[in-house]
Amino acid sequence: MTEQFDAVDIIRAKRFGGTLTPEQIAWTIDAYARGHMADSQMASLAMAICLQGMDRAEIAHWTRAMIDSGETMSFEGLGAPTTDKHSTGGVGDKITLPLAPLVASFGAAVPQLSGRGLGHTGGTLDKLESIPGWRADLTNEEFFAQLREVGAVICAAGSGLAPADKRLYALRDVTGTVDSIPLIASSIMSKKIAEGTAALTLDVKTGAGAFMRDEADARELARTMVDLGTDAGVRTVALLTDMSAPLGLTAGNAIEVEESLEVLQGGGPADVVELTVALAREMLAAAGKSDVDVEAALQDGRAMDTWRAMITAQGGDVDAPLPQAAEFTDVVAEADGVITDIDSLKVGVAAWRLGAGRSTPGAPVQHEAGVRLMRTLGQRVTKGEVIARMQTNMPEKFSRAEEAIAGAFMIDAGAEEFPLPSRILDRIA
Amino acid sequence: MTEQFDAVDIIRAKRFGGTLTPEQIAWTIDAYARGHMADSQMASLAMAICLQGMDRAEIAHWTRAMIDSGETMSFEGLGAPTTDKHSTGGVGDKITLPLAPLVASFGAAVPQLSGRGLGHTGGTLDKLESIPGWRADLTNEEFFAQLREVGAVICAAGSGLAPADKRLYALRDVTGTVDSIPLIASSIMSKKIAEGTAALTLDVKTGAGAFMRDEADARELARTMVDLGTDAGVRTVALLTDMSAPLGLTAGNAIEVEESLEVLQGGGPADVVELTVALAREMLAAAGKSDVDVEAALQDGRAMDTWRAMITAQGGDVDAPLPQAAEFTDVVAEADGVITDIDSLKVGVAAWRLGAGRSTPGAPVQHEAGVRLMRTLGQRVTKGEVIARMQTNMPEKFSRAEEAIAGAFMIDAGAEEFPLPSRILDRIA
Repeated sequence: MTEQFDAVDIIRAKRFGGTLTPEQIAWTIDAYARGHMADSQMASLAMAICLQGMDRAEIAHWTRAMIDSGETMSFEGLGAPTTDKHSTGGVGDKITLPLAPLVASFGAAVPQLSGRGLGHTGGTLDKLESIPGWRADLTNEEFFAQLREVGAVICAAGSGLAPADKRLYALRDVTGTVDSIPLIASSIMSKKIAEGTAALTLDVKTGAGAFMRDEADARELARTMVDLGTDAGVRTVALLTDMSAPLGLTAGNAIEVEESLEVLQGGGPADVVELTVALAREMLAAAGKSDVDVEAALQDGRAMDTWRAMITAQGGDVDAPLPQAAEFTDVVAEADGVITDIDSLKVGVAAWRLGAGRSTPGAPVQHEAGVRLMRTLGQRVTKGEVIARMQTNMPEKFSRAEEAIAGAFMIDAGAEEFPLPSRILDRIA
Repeated sequence: MTEQFDAVDIIRAKRFGGTLTPEQIAWTIDAYARGHMADSQMASLAMAICLQGMDRAEIAHWTRAMIDSGETMSFEGLGAPTTDKHSTGGVGDKITLPLAPLVASFGAAVPQLSGRGLGHTGGTLDKLESIPGWRADLTNEEFFAQLREVGAVICAAGSGLAPADKRLYALRDVTGTVDSIPLIASSIMSKKIAEGTAALTLDVKTGAGAFMRDEADARELARTMVDLGTDAGVRTVALLTDMSAPLGLTAGNAIEVEESLEVLQGGGPADVVELTVALAREMLAAAGKSDVDVEAALQDGRAMDTWRAMITAQGGDVDAPLPQAAEFTDVVAEADGVITDIDSLKVGVAAWRLGAGRSTPGAPVQHEAGVRLMRTLGQRVTKGEVIARMQTNMPEKFSRAEEAIAGAFMIDAGAEEFPLPSRILDRIA
């Protein structure tokens, strides 16, 4: 780094709506990663970015600088095309679980570096950890060996990828600067680009239970991330998907694994199957495999075989029963009619309060806790009928979970029954 | 404090343009003062305030919360009306020096808690410290005794007044959030209201050498501070004054004391006299003394008598010679013509670089350093004529000071000579 900058000048440039130069951005991220720029200065800059934005070039430079703060991986020499997926997160979003083995069953390599949950959206690793023996942490050697032999790996991201992002994310979390499209896009994409995947399919969710509730914002986030990936040489496509109602019939940990197994057995809720298949097609097309019958691999057990190999390789006992909650309480319909809406945020918060999620990073989660929908969108119910079951090992959690889920189901006496609507709103490439 | 808030909720409320409640503001300042709200969170909030503003009620609550973070003083029982003055700072602004004894010579009490300089604007205490023996730090007892006996005190503010402001100001300084009218106004007024003065006259400066270069901003700052003072029961008036050219003919420390003494002897530059007299009239009117001949007290030595008593009471030797710089270098006119503008920012930066000011809080300043204008606005000069003298004890400083002052004097060959223009642009009450 030859040029020296002053943090205050850079903050003020953004504060007054200016465009940061590539050199200013590189200096900023480097100084922050090295501890030469204080948290208070980065917090002030992050708020200025939230309010003044960044243009496409600034976001690309910011992303590149975060990549340059750490290691990068490479899958060259693997012998198979790599194709990865990232979801912006939602309630009941267990899609990675059936998706990774499904895609790998066609010979593509799926290096799925995942995270843990915080707040009302669950984490893929938390869900898988409900399988007895399964472990999220792999060495680099284990990771590459499994990718070569099984084709699918879902594991924890090492701390070496984009460490500046890790520090910045923790800061944004406590300074009210999380929901900024430039900062979200660069955070996600810096890790995915550093990871070295050749192709990336994004599932950008919108609606009540999504991070981006507003569809226009979600669309802009998708566009921004697709541009970032494309500019970095990663074949990137995004599906814009609806997260207004919970995905599938389960929100929790072990119960989401259970529902994923149903999908891998050729069954499962229609919306989970639809999204799994659509994302698999995108991932496979990006890996040069457009002409495959994705649904067949769910029906004939190929995807399940890969699942078993993938879980077993990480120490999981695929035949062990999943943990079951000791206590449950039912939610009943308050009126006769058809369920016309289910507020996924309310369901997600209820699952979280039952113990399925955490409030602070690093806290444990309860594998058994969660919400199981007994009836779903478009179905007719009668007053007093059980429409959801809340389960946990800690019954003292029921009262706050009941508060959270109250009013989540909209029941319309005059509506007709309808089939589950499609989750896929648009495709952005 | 009965109610509990979350810092992130408060930051986000302001980020999205909301109005903070009195309870949220009180909680914020209290949490910050106690260290329960992190610097990074306050920095993010400060940037959100810079970009989203605060309304009159929010600014008043913010100011009140900062006052409540520390001690307050009271002048009840003093037996004389208190009347104070605050200037937003400028180049060559030595007005407090002749003003405080001038006003006190009419029987009003002037409790002038002052600061030190940072950057290109000088500090009143730094100037007075060039008087041999004079000390800025007084105990509470010394302060009240001098106020009672002499009527005028210029001393350092104790750390007990609005300590939250002190911490916040240091944070704003490094996070690009200094120039925000709500934050500036509440910072100044929290200290002045906590000090307990009954009346306050504000000198709000605008132009090249002022903090608020733009007149509309300066006017808004003046209006905001007058409203804050009035709402808090302090009789508050502001003069909006021009700081485009340096005030008087000197910018430094000892040389500004020297110019102040000229004013107290009935002489001095017309602009310094004009502003001293105008501010004295406002301060005296606010203290119930409208019917006095302010100029007479400068001519007949009454103000000088009070000056001598004031300086002597704080250990200063009023008869000792002021320190003189060992080295000087001259600035000459680059053309024939009339001086139509002098850039006070450039002159201020030159004085600072000569050693008259500091770059970091707590650093020492050089009493002897500064810039003396030999010619001023409206005067005809000939090419090569000495128009300013730069002085310091450290001649290695000349080259960077010369860079700073280059181009400060605008000389117009076609212009007519003109008298010094009035400094007073408006009065805001």
